[in-house]
Amino acid sequence: MSARGDGEASGEDALIARYFRPLATHPGAYGLTDDAASLTPPPGMDVVLQADAIVGGVHFFSDDPADLVARKALRVNLSDLAAKGAAPAGCLLTLALPDGIGEAWLAAFARGLGEDIAAFGCPLMGGDTVRTTGPVVVSIAAFGFVPGGRMVRRAGAQAGDSLIVTGTIGDAALGLALRKDAARWSLTEPERRHLAGRYLLPQPRAALAPLLVEHASAAMDVSDGLAGDLGKLCAASGVDAEVDVARVPLSAAAAKVVAAEPAMLPAALSGGDDYEIIAAIPAAKVGAMQAAGVPVTEIGRIVSGTGTARFVDKGRQLAFERRSFSHF
Amino acid sequence: MSARGDGEASGEDALIARYFRPLATHPGAYGLTDDAASLTPPPGMDVVLQADAIVGGVHFFSDDPADLVARKALRVNLSDLAAKGAAPAGCLLTLALPDGIGEAWLAAFARGLGEDIAAFGCPLMGGDTVRTTGPVVVSIAAFGFVPGGRMVRRAGAQAGDSLIVTGTIGDAALGLALRKDAARWSLTEPERRHLAGRYLLPQPRAALAPLLVEHASAAMDVSDGLAGDLGKLCAASGVDAEVDVARVPLSAAAAKVVAAEPAMLPAALSGGDDYEIIAAIPAAKVGAMQAAGVPVTEIGRIVSGTGTARFVDKGRQLAFERRSFSHF
Repeated sequence: MSARGDGEASGEDALIARYFRPLATHPGAYGLTDDAASLTPPPGMDVVLQADAIVGGVHFFSDDPADLVARKALRVNLSDLAAKGAAPAGCLLTLALPDGIGEAWLAAFARGLGEDIAAFGCPLMGGDTVRTTGPVVVSIAAFGFVPGGRMVRRAGAQAGDSLIVTGTIGDAALGLALRKDAARWSLTEPERRHLAGRYLLPQPRAALAPLLVEHASAAMDVSDGLAGDLGKLCAASGVDAEVDVARVPLSAAAAKVVAAEPAMLPAALSGGDDYEIIAAIPAAKVGAMQAAGVPVTEIGRIVSGTGTARFVDKGRQLAFERRSFSHF
Repeated sequence: MSARGDGEASGEDALIARYFRPLATHPGAYGLTDDAASLTPPPGMDVVLQADAIVGGVHFFSDDPADLVARKALRVNLSDLAAKGAAPAGCLLTLALPDGIGEAWLAAFARGLGEDIAAFGCPLMGGDTVRTTGPVVVSIAAFGFVPGGRMVRRAGAQAGDSLIVTGTIGDAALGLALRKDAARWSLTEPERRHLAGRYLLPQPRAALAPLLVEHASAAMDVSDGLAGDLGKLCAASGVDAEVDVARVPLSAAAAKVVAAEPAMLPAALSGGDDYEIIAAIPAAKVGAMQAAGVPVTEIGRIVSGTGTARFVDKGRQLAFERRSFSHF
């Protein structure tokens, strides 16, 4: 991403200069006036690399406010960095825009992105803006720093570890269901707003990153459903997990939905877009994970096995139609 | 980008495992089985960050061979890294795919990407695959290493520097014109193939990177047209450039086009997709730039000024309808 300054600015350059240059506060971003950025990792630190894209009509509704689209696009990346123990260092944005997207949309997008770039300390380092005949595609590559060799892996969970999860699970999947049928489950307006908000705007658990580096045997963010993602962690670690479903933290609104329609429990445990963190933690260190002020709940334990996550509800193993979200 | 191994692989995970895992040869890519990658920069090296996206129907034709689409997507990024003096270290791929793209397309895409990842030493570190209702969007973020503080900037050109360019200019723009009217200019089949090939598959000048770090005052890759891009370099450096149009290197095919239709000369100098490098080099060092075996031609010089690139043809300044390509 670059803007020219020779007095014959193209539309693309003008757009970048107006909306995105103010977000490029890192000195190595050169105010987006160069072709690339440079980043000097602190001595002894590794660079953690991660990219996620979101697409209009697929990951967000085309009429979602543009500032929230931008913030979600950044936050899904920050959620991964946090789960890997990395502190945000910067990001690249590639933005495919349909004709006629309009300046108001772009201005709101840049405003939202700028708010979260400031809030999470993840400056815009560069990128690209291109035209598409299709829907908006927001692709962000995010970089973080982690002490050398210490990136928290999916692999590494040990039999005997406790299994923890941050925040609450299932809200976003239920929030998405409400977008299609707002009257479902006769929720109050604040309950609906809570669930819808959890779909619209993830809360990356950035504050937890240093504690994960210090204590976690393994971790990942929960983006495609707790059941499926925990299965991935188990498979990578070569262990099984036993989850006590009664201990999985639900928000008051989600608990009300599950009480009204028990079939929504597996849906909540396998829906996507939670952007919480699951981690395997040596039992003696679970208490220490509370130190960051991020809500952390112990939901089960790691046992020896070959890569299966079991969800046990009142003594009986929960069955899932599908364990996670997939585009394909 | 990650693949699960728990025996309940989703379509997305199966796709990643089959086509992209073989390209993730870097140990820090963890075989795409984790949520992120880690990269350990050699001591004293900076990380150069760069992202470019290409879109079906915009940057390539939807019926272009998928292996060439992949290679072009990577190469436009490698071209930027080379111009900044950086050695490739790795890349992230986010791929937005329409329904029904088909396994054959993906297999060819991965094959082409794999060839260039191997050829240029730029392993796949991760990314994301998502669905879109629009055309294919290939977004690549590429990373390179450069000695600390030595990224070659657009800024830095000095009055008195010689101006050099690699390879030949204008081929890709003429090749694109031929895609729309193959009979134009009565070219021979080999001439047509040459120009078309230059549009389809850029040749990043990776071998030149160390010489640029050693000698260049300023450099950038020529992706949006020589005239406009040189203007950007001049603006960033706060200098003017005087180009002797007769010295701008044209391929035999491009020279034949310009002889047949002189109006194509400004088109060649302002068309996009060259992916050559322009650099300002102290006059005494121009000879040293030949050492990498990359064809390098001196086309003019840097003079004091305020950011204007002048193209002088037989004593008279060339006029451009537009100096560069812009999507907006």
